[in-house]
Amino acid sequence: MDIRKQFGANVRKHRQATGLSQEQFALQHDIDRTYVSGIERGKRNPTIVIVNKFAKALDVSIADLFDGCD
Amino acid sequence: MDIRKQFGANVRKHRQATGLSQEQFALQHDIDRTYVSGIERGKRNPTIVIVNKFAKALDVSIADLFDGCD
Repeated sequence: MDIRKQFGANVRKHRQATGLSQEQFALQHDIDRTYVSGIERGKRNPTIVIVNKFAKALDVSIADLFDGCD
Repeated sequence: MDIRKQFGANVRKHRQATGLSQEQFALQHDIDRTYVSGIERGKRNPTIVIVNKFAKALDVSIADLFDGCD
């Protein structure tokens, strides 16, 4: 699977586990909602600085966000 | 520590473990040598597609490259 798709699925899984909608999550963490949507759909190719921001916002490890990507 | 610095240190550690110089590693994996150098010095902000390429080239997991970054 394309790493962007698997990474996006992982972000979605952990974001849903917070109980927040994309909009609430984006607002809470000062991230553009359409960017969150694009990442979750595997349409974006985020940098490691953005990966780190999402891991902190979701309160998971960076490795968690790459689960199943190897 | 800035995630780019820690990521770069991890790439350097694993690249050195292959016994290859930056130049040999770059040549072998069709990556620009100055880009490898920039990543190892923490000066670059690679995307997850590039992270995946380095993990495959170094024959390590993506999580290995983010060791110590959380």
